[in-house]
Amino acid sequence: MILRFGILCFPGVQQLDLTGPYEVFASARDAEVHLVWKDLAPIRSATGLVLQPDTRLADAPDFDVLCVPGGSGVNALMTDGEVLAFVRDKASKARFVTSVCTGSLVLGQAGLLSGRRATTHWNAHDFLPRLGAIPVRERVVRDGPIITAGGVTSGIDFGLAVIAELLGREEAETIQLSLEYAPAPPFGAGLPETASPAVLAQARARMAASRQERETLLA
Amino acid sequence: MILRFGILCFPGVQQLDLTGPYEVFASARDAEVHLVWKDLAPIRSATGLVLQPDTRLADAPDFDVLCVPGGSGVNALMTDGEVLAFVRDKASKARFVTSVCTGSLVLGQAGLLSGRRATTHWNAHDFLPRLGAIPVRERVVRDGPIITAGGVTSGIDFGLAVIAELLGREEAETIQLSLEYAPAPPFGAGLPETASPAVLAQARARMAASRQERETLLA
Repeated sequence: MILRFGILCFPGVQQLDLTGPYEVFASARDAEVHLVWKDLAPIRSATGLVLQPDTRLADAPDFDVLCVPGGSGVNALMTDGEVLAFVRDKASKARFVTSVCTGSLVLGQAGLLSGRRATTHWNAHDFLPRLGAIPVRERVVRDGPIITAGGVTSGIDFGLAVIAELLGREEAETIQLSLEYAPAPPFGAGLPETASPAVLAQARARMAASRQERETLLA
Repeated sequence: MILRFGILCFPGVQQLDLTGPYEVFASARDAEVHLVWKDLAPIRSATGLVLQPDTRLADAPDFDVLCVPGGSGVNALMTDGEVLAFVRDKASKARFVTSVCTGSLVLGQAGLLSGRRATTHWNAHDFLPRLGAIPVRERVVRDGPIITAGGVTSGIDFGLAVIAELLGREEAETIQLSLEYAPAPPFGAGLPETASPAVLAQARARMAASRQERETLLA
C-alpha cells in the first residue's frame, strides 16, 4: 500500500520546514510525496531556494498525511480562502493533519486547531490561543489526528515521529540511521530560554516585520 | 562585504545535504548562495525533490565557501573530469572547501583530501583512506581550509560551524535560534553504534547498490 504525503509548497515557504520532512517521508518504503500548490510554476522560498510544485490543489488526491510548512509566506495563506478551503477539505480525509513551524497558523485559520493541543515556532507561540488552540511548548505535539511541530528544524524530529506512527519504529529508525541523524549543534542557542539576550534580540529583530503582519491579521 | 557560497547541485544529490546548509548560509547577513551545475535545467534529487541550479560551472564566480553535498549522484561526479576540474579550480581560490555526507568522495577524487583529516557518511567512511584522507569519526571535521561533515543531517551542524568561522559565534547562534535548532530525535538510532542490528542491516541494504558502485570506482 502506498502512503501519500501532501505538502503545501507556496511562495515564501521556509524551505527547511518542507525539505526536512520531505527527506524523511520520501525515504520511507512505499511513500509518495506531493508538493501541492495552485499551479505548477516554480516558487521562491523565503531564503531564495526555488522549489517546484508537482500537484495542483485542484488535482490533488486525498492524502494519508497533509502537511503545512511555515515561513513568511504563511501570512498570505492566512487570508486565502482557496487555500483554507483546500486545507479543510483534505484535512477531513487525511489520517494525520500536520504542520511544521508557523504552518500551524494556517491550520488554525482553517479552524482545525480549536480545542487542540498544538505548537509552532517559538516566536509565534503566543498566537496559538487566538486561534483557539491550547499552546504546548514541545518540539512535536500530537492531539488525535493533529500533529504540529515547532520551528523549522523540528520538522526532522516530526517527520520521524510521523513515520513511526504510520510504519512503525523500525522504519523510522532505519531512516534516522540513513540520514545519520545524531545531531550535535555546535552551540546551545536553539531556544529563547537558552540563547543569550543579545542573540534573542537579534533573532526577534530579523523576524519583526513578518510577526507584525501576523499581529495585524490576528488582531 | 558579501559572502559567496557555492553549492554543487547535481542530479541525484541528497537534497537535505544541500538544503540544510543552504538554509543556514542563506540566513546569514550579507550572504549570497549559488547552486552551481553544468546547465540551468532543473535537476532531480535522490529522493525526488526537484532543485533549480542558478549558476553554470562556466559562469561561477570565486566563492568564499565551496560546498559539495553527497547522495547517490556523487558516483557519476567521481569520474567526471569537468566537475573535478571545476572543484579543483574553485577550491584553490576559496577560503573554505567543504563537503557534506559523501560529497567528500568528490573532494577526495579531486585530490583535495591528501593527508587531510576528514569525515563522510558512516557508510562510506572506509573509502576515505583510499582517497588519501585521514578518516575521523566526528560530525564536523576541520583541517585547515578543508571542512567535511558526516551524513546528511550533519549539514546543519556544519553550516552553523562555518558561519561561526566566517561571521562569528553570535551570528551563528542567531541563525540557530531562528531555525529553532534544539534537536530532539524521537529515537537514538542515528549512528551505526547506537542502532539495533536489524535497523543497521536494513539501512545498509537500502544503500548497498550505490555503495557497490563506489567500491568498483575506487577499486
